[in-house]
Amino acid sequence: MTAYRELEQRFRRLGAIEQAISVLHWDTAAIMPAGGAAARAEQLATLRLIAHQHLVAPEIEALLAEADAASDELGEWQRANLREMRRRWLHATAVPGALVEAESRACSECEAVWRRGRLENDFAAVLPGLERIIHIEREIAAVKAERLGKSPYEALLDQYEPDASVAEIDRLFDEIAEFLPDLIEAALSRQAALPSAPVCGPFPIETQRRIAMRLMERIGFDFAHGRLDISAHPFCGGTPEDVRITTRYDEDDFARALMGVLHETGHALYQRGLPAEWRLQPVGRARGMAMHESQSLLLEMQVCRSRAFLTYAAPIIRKAFGGDGPEWEVEALYRRQIRVRRGFIRVDADEVTYPAHVILRYRLERAMLAGDLDPTDLPGAWAAAMREMLGVAPDNDREGCLQDIHWYDGNWGYFPTYTLGALIAAQLFEAARRDVPGLMQAIAEGEFAPLLGWARGRVHSKGSLLSTAELVETATGQPLGAASFERHLRDRYLS
Amino acid sequence: MTAYRELEQRFRRLGAIEQAISVLHWDTAAIMPAGGAAARAEQLATLRLIAHQHLVAPEIEALLAEADAASDELGEWQRANLREMRRRWLHATAVPGALVEAESRACSECEAVWRRGRLENDFAAVLPGLERIIHIEREIAAVKAERLGKSPYEALLDQYEPDASVAEIDRLFDEIAEFLPDLIEAALSRQAALPSAPVCGPFPIETQRRIAMRLMERIGFDFAHGRLDISAHPFCGGTPEDVRITTRYDEDDFARALMGVLHETGHALYQRGLPAEWRLQPVGRARGMAMHESQSLLLEMQVCRSRAFLTYAAPIIRKAFGGDGPEWEVEALYRRQIRVRRGFIRVDADEVTYPAHVILRYRLERAMLAGDLDPTDLPGAWAAAMREMLGVAPDNDREGCLQDIHWYDGNWGYFPTYTLGALIAAQLFEAARRDVPGLMQAIAEGEFAPLLGWARGRVHSKGSLLSTAELVETATGQPLGAASFERHLRDRYLS
Repeated sequence: MTAYRELEQRFRRLGAIEQAISVLHWDTAAIMPAGGAAARAEQLATLRLIAHQHLVAPEIEALLAEADAASDELGEWQRANLREMRRRWLHATAVPGALVEAESRACSECEAVWRRGRLENDFAAVLPGLERIIHIEREIAAVKAERLGKSPYEALLDQYEPDASVAEIDRLFDEIAEFLPDLIEAALSRQAALPSAPVCGPFPIETQRRIAMRLMERIGFDFAHGRLDISAHPFCGGTPEDVRITTRYDEDDFARALMGVLHETGHALYQRGLPAEWRLQPVGRARGMAMHESQSLLLEMQVCRSRAFLTYAAPIIRKAFGGDGPEWEVEALYRRQIRVRRGFIRVDADEVTYPAHVILRYRLERAMLAGDLDPTDLPGAWAAAMREMLGVAPDNDREGCLQDIHWYDGNWGYFPTYTLGALIAAQLFEAARRDVPGLMQAIAEGEFAPLLGWARGRVHSKGSLLSTAELVETATGQPLGAASFERHLRDRYLS
Repeated sequence: MTAYRELEQRFRRLGAIEQAISVLHWDTAAIMPAGGAAARAEQLATLRLIAHQHLVAPEIEALLAEADAASDELGEWQRANLREMRRRWLHATAVPGALVEAESRACSECEAVWRRGRLENDFAAVLPGLERIIHIEREIAAVKAERLGKSPYEALLDQYEPDASVAEIDRLFDEIAEFLPDLIEAALSRQAALPSAPVCGPFPIETQRRIAMRLMERIGFDFAHGRLDISAHPFCGGTPEDVRITTRYDEDDFARALMGVLHETGHALYQRGLPAEWRLQPVGRARGMAMHESQSLLLEMQVCRSRAFLTYAAPIIRKAFGGDGPEWEVEALYRRQIRVRRGFIRVDADEVTYPAHVILRYRLERAMLAGDLDPTDLPGAWAAAMREMLGVAPDNDREGCLQDIHWYDGNWGYFPTYTLGALIAAQLFEAARRDVPGLMQAIAEGEFAPLLGWARGRVHSKGSLLSTAELVETATGQPLGAASFERHLRDRYLS
């Protein structure tokens, strides 16, 4: 057996273990009775340890070298697979065991303190844990940077969005930061001039679920290969063969769960559309968090909050709830789906203000890692950045720098992927409309096969064959930029 | 670290992997979308392989020997744990890899043919696969017998019911076979003389589920540590911390699902009551299949089909379904729960005829393994045994020797545990009534804490500390016999 084949076998087994972990993780979040938590934590820790041991097995290094040496004999996908194997191996072996453990312990401890600290608006209580995590993340960034030949922050980024470049993100985010404040202002003025008609609940959960499932199915979600369930924090989990999305329902506001479901459906379609012939192999996985987010935002923001989609969906929704009156018309529904608000909370933000939340976090986390911002000064820096980007700032840390779990759970370098995803989504959708004549008309008629076919061919089926940059450029004919996103916002919110 | 401690660590990890397997197995049976089957099979095969590798790791033999040598320093539970570790290790290492694989392949192939063969009543089609499996099981029995120092059939039995003895089973089953035909006859005559009033559905599934959950909870099932779901074949799965039982509902017959749920609740309470301080260790597991079945039959047959229990449950059931009239009275309900019928199908059998089904399978499988019965002659031997034991025989193999999956899936040596479980259940319940004054009165009032407390203390909390024989004798003051079971049948069906 060639070294490459042996690596494929080993990674296949690793992939199967990781699928098991993914299903158990879904179970934990969606349906596990509370009393099962401790036992489940041990099951997951055990499987994660076993997965890690597979990845760092002493034979892997030589196998990778041998396979690299014989890479002339490999096809394009195999070479890409080998590259992704090496990436995973480099990340897994870069950090000494003691540091991995220190991170894991610091994060567990800090996360627990953070949960209480957020509740009680007590940043001071969380600060020591945060400082400890920053210290550890800096060390991890340093050893990974050394090993990967990247800058420290890029080494962290690479965990979520392989090969992302700080220079590139800076360029894109600076461009957004340049036009966004004025655009928000303009969108709000325009919105103020338009009538707004609310609908009143209660909207029965069972009805919401039926509508969601009907739309999911119509868009292309295959319930023979997936489920829709409930969890406190909606997510898309499971495996490509068994994609499980969750939502939470609000009896007073059906659109919240519905748009959430459609967002997760975007993730789900990506996962389901990954190349089946490379299942369980590194190259068969989703390209990265930015591309994953682009698929959820493509569906939720670009497609499902469009007038075209709501032209199709409004009658279904109206009929299911027995709605009547102008507030149930397409235009009213559409207006409500594209409301802009200067809010404090990222996860509640609309697509116009969302980048402001992300950019400030990106800048603050880089500054903290670089030592340019003392975490003690984070609340003040947060408020200043909010005022600069959004023109508002919370008067407490609960709605400020304590609102997101990421920093307190070791997910440094993750934030930028949200907005990279939004940029990619806009650029992809522009390309799809160019490539597929009549796409918006099809959507307005509830025909999603043209859109899904395009996304499958251009994005999903590529797995991790290309880098994100290559994938975007191949799919759209252009390097990733902010122009499509800006055009999208201007079209939707200002025209 | 002592050898014993290291073994504990290794078995703890093995236990966690096996818990993960158990949860995934539940997921597969209860909620997995059909399209996830192939990927799930690979996840499970991978985890099973990893579990097996943990168990047969080359260091284990020396660790067991070393721990045995130092067993004077161990406490009672630790020594029992070491004994159970060795048992698991012996079973895992006894069979050469090639034979394990041959069994696995033969079973997969035969099971697939059996599913079609049963549907089409085609024993001839299944025969070659069955012969192949018998051949392999004989080999496995031989190598395990050698390794365990038991007879070949006992070596197979030991996989499900450790330390079960053929002489003992023969003695018990012969005793049952002696009194059972006359008892069935008498029970049927008596039943014919009693009025029988059916209730008519439909009985809404949601109502059935609510009643089931209410009774489960009342009996002691803790929904913070478990779930009730639906599956094609009801079972009890999950882990002691997260016990998951399933049922299937029939809109025309609420009692079927209800009694099924109560049966699985018996399994669940056992699993939940296993000694938490020995969780994930071999000694912390259920004693064996006979003891497990005894706990389900104790609850279903001894308790929940009793007049006392139905005195408590009848008003709840009647009210939930809005039932009215004499057919909803305790006595009518009770009569329907203890109906006896000479049927062909084991899984539909009542507790009186059930042992007949089991005993004939036990005798036939032993004869086939010993070479005394050619599988070609199985249908004829089946019919003869049915006539002898039950006085009826099916005119087809679908309702005869093709009805159960066990032989076609490699579960040789499993059948006797059903009836051993029934004997243990009867003997335990007699002891419980003796030990706990007013037990039946408490049950009639819906108070189950006395019963559960007794079972927890005498059985559940013992895990695998004792052998089944010791456990029964300690709990009841008597070696296992058939007398309690016979008394139970005579009391309920003839008095």
